[in-house]
Amino acid sequence: MILGKIIGTVWATRKDDSLTGSKLLIVKQLDLKMQEKESFVVAVDSVGAGDGEIVLVATGSSARQTTITKNKPVDAVVMAIVDKLDIPYHGN
Amino acid sequence: MILGKIIGTVWATRKDDSLTGSKLLIVKQLDLKMQEKESFVVAVDSVGAGDGEIVLVATGSSARQTTITKNKPVDAVVMAIVDKLDIPYHGN
Amino acid sequence: MILGKIIGTVWATRKDDSLTGSKLLIVKQLDLKMQEKESFVVAVDSVGAGDGEIVLVATGSSARQTTITKNKPVDAVVMAIVDKLDIPYHGN
Amino acid sequence: MILGKIIGTVWATRKDDSLTGSKLLIVKQLDLKMQEKESFVVAVDSVGAGDGEIVLVATGSSARQTTITKNKPVDAVVMAIVDKLDIPYHGN
Amino acid sequence: MILGKIIGTVWATRKDDSLTGSKLLIVKQLDLKMQEKESFVVAVDSVGAGDGEIVLVATGSSARQTTITKNKPVDAVVMAIVDKLDIPYHGN
Repeated sequence: MILGKIIGTVWATRKDDSLTGSKLLIVKQLDLKMQEKESFVVAVDSVGAGDGEIVLVATGSSARQTTITKNKPVDAVVMAIVDKLDIPYHGN
Repeated sequence: MILGKIIGTVWATRKDDSLTGSKLLIVKQLDLKMQEKESFVVAVDSVGAGDGEIVLVATGSSARQTTITKNKPVDAVVMAIVDKLDIPYHGN
Repeated sequence: MILGKIIGTVWATRKDDSLTGSKLLIVKQLDLKMQEKESFVVAVDSVGAGDGEIVLVATGSSARQTTITKNKPVDAVVMAIVDKLDIPYHGN
Repeated sequence: MILGKIIGTVWATRKDDSLTGSKLLIVKQLDLKMQEKESFVVAVDSVGAGDGEIVLVATGSSARQTTITKNKPVDAVVMAIVDKLDIPYHGN
Repeated sequence: MILGKIIGTVWATRKDDSLTGSKLLIVKQLDLKMQEKESFVVAVDSVGAGDGEIVLVATGSSARQTTITKNKPVDAVVMAIVDKLDIPYHGN
């Protein structure tokens, strides 16, 4: 999964019918020091995540393994909200 | 999903039979300031999108989850037309 | 899909049994000015494409959605031969 | 599969229900000299791997082919712990 | 598929049960002049390939379409041994 931070939302009125009601989140990728990288992905929310939260994003067919995304044309889903990283080997 | 802008169309007479009638769009990837990147993808249209429009593209097996692309050899589909990006945390 | 140009063929006598008779094409990736990039992929032909032709390549599980590639261990298929690109917004 | 080293764990209380009890490992990618690269992935553990161990990570739909990850929204799984690399052709 | 050269083997005693007996090959990616690139992948052997051989590697779900890899958590398989590349357009 990708580590990322939610920085906003995509508004899209015209979209695949199955996506009505889905929240399309803009997620910037983070490095292990929680600094934002240039790359980002648009992902469907499945856990009630919001702006500013650190999350995990699953991509590809795995993005369709939640009740919210099943059988839908989405290739990225926010499936966890991160409390913290525990990195003993690189903590210093 | 990838954020992109439709800049044109691919004409292909000889193609997999299942793709007859499918519109093959050239989509340039955008950054969050709506500037075009170098990279692009050819994607099938599933929402009636046209030249100049900002869209989302789903890739991989997820690209086959629309009625238009089901069971077809396509790995990218335009599945939403973007109205706007709402980015409160990076808006300034 | 990837835009590419067929520049040759891979000969492989010892391969998965299901691939007997499949043509393994070397496809160099193209940019929108039809210039070749460094990157290339080996793809199975499903449309009778040959050396020098401009084509589209579908990758991943979508590469197995043709009658020629179904259930085979291939992750890239040539599924269309390009006649031309129509790019009104970037034509100048 | 990706060669990597486990350097820590992600804590996430709020996540897809199916992931309760799953261990989310932070895996840094390694080169063939066992030096860490910048890139990393968050992967679910399926073999009892822990901090500091060298592992293999399977990604995409293949990440769901273990009993622990089946049908879950995860796109990376640690499925082997590496004892050693045997590289006769590049050993010097 | 990726063009690569087998340079060694990964030893892993503790791994997903389904992988017992599978040979885990280290495959360095090649360019079209058969020069090794930096990037490599660990792939399961399905054709009896060995050190020093030039091969094709299929990735993603396609890697599970051989009798040896079916339903296993592997995302890369060696599915062909290359005899030669035939590149008329770039041969000079």
